Amino acid sequence: MTGETRVRRDSEPVVVVASNRGPVTHQRGPDGDIRPRRGGGGLVSALSPLLRRRDSLWIASAMSEVDREMAGRTVRVDGGLQVQFVDIEAARLRRSYDLVCNGTLWFLHHHLFDATRRPVFDRRWWEAWSDYVDMNRSFAAAIRENAPEGSVVLVQDYHLCLVAEELRLSGSGLASVHFSHTPFAAPETFRILPSRVRKEILSGMAAFDSCGFHTARWRDCFLACCDQEGVEPPSTFVAPLGPDEQSLKDDAVDPRCVREWERILESAEGRRLIVRVDRIEPSKNILRGLRAFDELLETHPEHRGEVVFAHFLYPSRQRLPEYTAYHKEVLSLAEHLNRKWGDAAWTPVVVDDTDDHLRSLAALGAYDVLVVNPVRDGLNLVAKEGPLVNRRDGEVILSTEAGAYEELGETAHGVEPFDVSATAEAMHAALTSDETVRRSRAARLKELAAARTPEDWLLDQLSAVGAL
Amino acid sequence: MTGETRVRRDSEPVVVVASNRGPVTHQRGPDGDIRPRRGGGGLVSALSPLLRRRDSLWIASAMSEVDREMAGRTVRVDGGLQVQFVDIEAARLRRSYDLVCNGTLWFLHHHLFDATRRPVFDRRWWEAWSDYVDMNRSFAAAIRENAPEGSVVLVQDYHLCLVAEELRLSGSGLASVHFSHTPFAAPETFRILPSRVRKEILSGMAAFDSCGFHTARWRDCFLACCDQEGVEPPSTFVAPLGPDEQSLKDDAVDPRCVREWERILESAEGRRLIVRVDRIEPSKNILRGLRAFDELLETHPEHRGEVVFAHFLYPSRQRLPEYTAYHKEVLSLAEHLNRKWGDAAWTPVVVDDTDDHLRSLAALGAYDVLVVNPVRDGLNLVAKEGPLVNRRDGEVILSTEAGAYEELGETAHGVEPFDVSATAEAMHAALTSDETVRRSRAARLKELAAARTPEDWLLDQLSAVGAL
Repeated sequence: MTGETRVRRDSEPVVVVASNRGPVTHQRGPDGDIRPRRGGGGLVSALSPLLRRRDSLWIASAMSEVDREMAGRTVRVDGGLQVQFVDIEAARLRRSYDLVCNGTLWFLHHHLFDATRRPVFDRRWWEAWSDYVDMNRSFAAAIRENAPEGSVVLVQDYHLCLVAEELRLSGSGLASVHFSHTPFAAPETFRILPSRVRKEILSGMAAFDSCGFHTARWRDCFLACCDQEGVEPPSTFVAPLGPDEQSLKDDAVDPRCVREWERILESAEGRRLIVRVDRIEPSKNILRGLRAFDELLETHPEHRGEVVFAHFLYPSRQRLPEYTAYHKEVLSLAEHLNRKWGDAAWTPVVVDDTDDHLRSLAALGAYDVLVVNPVRDGLNLVAKEGPLVNRRDGEVILSTEAGAYEELGETAHGVEPFDVSATAEAMHAALTSDETVRRSRAARLKELAAARTPEDWLLDQLSAVGAL
Repeated sequence: MTGETRVRRDSEPVVVVASNRGPVTHQRGPDGDIRPRRGGGGLVSALSPLLRRRDSLWIASAMSEVDREMAGRTVRVDGGLQVQFVDIEAARLRRSYDLVCNGTLWFLHHHLFDATRRPVFDRRWWEAWSDYVDMNRSFAAAIRENAPEGSVVLVQDYHLCLVAEELRLSGSGLASVHFSHTPFAAPETFRILPSRVRKEILSGMAAFDSCGFHTARWRDCFLACCDQEGVEPPSTFVAPLGPDEQSLKDDAVDPRCVREWERILESAEGRRLIVRVDRIEPSKNILRGLRAFDELLETHPEHRGEVVFAHFLYPSRQRLPEYTAYHKEVLSLAEHLNRKWGDAAWTPVVVDDTDDHLRSLAALGAYDVLVVNPVRDGLNLVAKEGPLVNRRDGEVILSTEAGAYEELGETAHGVEPFDVSATAEAMHAALTSDETVRRSRAARLKELAAARTPEDWLLDQLSAVGAL
């Protein structure tokens, strides 16, 4: 990014972002040099350009030994972003992150538990919970020490629910917002947590000046949980994130992205292209997407040999056995379908799990049909990014359980994520739709997807605490 | 049972019970003779004595070839009960029962789905759904043809949600009640079902004159689902089932039961006895019960060698892979704990999965601590039967998610079913409680458990439609 200038109006508060993963992490190269690596995920790409332009500080967990060495002072990274790393003992961070954040709260808010077996709140878990509490305390301490008076603290996600309570206890007087990027568990599902933990999480969130969600539905789930547990809720707001259109378009004209785009279309050999771009993640519902494709080929034989379902996936959370097992199942079901339906000339299912950002973006440019069918999803940014960069009047199949459905639902092919037959029928409808209809739908999707920008989202957070 | 007389007051309506499983099923013996076998489960033992005493008819699916031969006429079985079998093609009944009833609706209402993989609403499932609809139609036809004018039809459980709608369509004018023996899914979980099925189930239930539930909580879940789906709810009532105290006490003095009781106490060799009596069923939470016992021995070494955790289990639904897998996991975790903790003199965990009713009853007589920790349970009759027949001032550990908790919670040791550490602590507390406290709690539990009888429950159903 060039041509950015840092502006500071006197009236403008300093923005302090706190999130577990920061915009950058550092490794030492073979000859001792320090190498920054940009963090992945929608939050970093959405926030970084905005924060570079204003007086800001990003507080994040030190993820590496080099990050740890930098902890305790403010460092400038990645084009001028100011970052402060919080040094949390590696074993504690790991227990808190793997067992509480990803292994429990993520599954809870996405309604993903296999309740027959998981979760198990045993001694090991309770130890991890106290690590989680400590981690939140360390963040609160870092914020207290480094946030200038009058700044606004924007705390991101379920990793840091308890920060504001710790801040209040210390009487910091900072304005604070909590934003949930995930769905929020419904009350009867929230009861899976032990009551003590339920109360601590909700009271923790209630200690923020305001709590934000991507959709009214997740906000209502949160309020219903507060009601169930007898916790007085804080003020809340709904502010869906939007994609960073300019940076997507910049990346899309990158020569390598253009080459990948051509290669993807070439390898399809004129066949229609169904595309999925996702983290390898149980909530994304990759298996049922494949089952729907199987049923499509079964019930609509005209598509045999004529369609390719291409998956562009990136592995994640590979320390959790649920994730590695899921990855294997996806690959094995894809292979099964290729054996069942494919022949020398046609490979019906392609899975690319090499985590190549520009290739994924190229695939979004090339789809005839984009499949976004999560079982439950806070927002799903891919559902908005796809229409913005697609160049073929592609159609979108969108789960009713994705947050983005509230904004795009009218124009996407809505599917209920467990309904494999309906998903197969949506694939058929999207593959056979009339060209004029496709064109007008694609145009409308572009409008809807561009309606909200990362800046809107950031400003909504500030405005929620009267800091605009 | 002897000494019963059938009474019929003119004012008393004929009671027609409709349930998938009836009070009896018939097999042909090796020499061609017809052998009745009494059905298991709480419903049959609760209702049969009451129905024998009044003008009644029980309509149930024909489960065997012999039952099928009897279909279409009313047969007298088991001490005079009048039964009518509905002949549903075996393959259809099986698809409806395995795939829709047990494989979907049971898991749904108990919040048991592993959403990553199950359910899958594919072509096969939709075929089974149409079998389910047909099965409900066949029941409605049998009721229409056989229920005398002015009778009250009591339809039991999620297998037969659609019966009343079919009856109304045909203008039968019979009063009808639906009673749910399971919990009811919370609205956000109910959304797992395809919207068409959600509407059909709720409109189906709304076509009854009244819908009954074991607790206010499940009733509220049902009403919240109606609200979510825009279905005008029927009148509802809450009527927890109670155990049949007399028949329990009759069985408890059966010489074989007494011998089993002595044998159980002998084999414990003076050790304290923690007991579980359950169907082998994921909702019963047998695995976490074992994990809690493991944590008890870990954190309270004084119980090592001094306590036996005895399981009296009966296999069920063995055509469903979830059930056979669960059975294996239970046995293997029990073995693991015995290897970990046991020695030549002490086997810490005993699992008896021979489905022996009198032995289970003997175990209920003998426990020091009864563990009832389901993840979600409509009522749980064992939690009431235990205190009624226990002879050792035993304590009860009871899940907050069992319907019976609403009635017994004040006096039992309440545990949240996913909280293994809290369950271990409850075991410790129950094993070490003061004798005077135990005695008074056991007495109070007996009172609470006896507060409701099967007759109360039956009369509540009749009263819900003004037939009392």
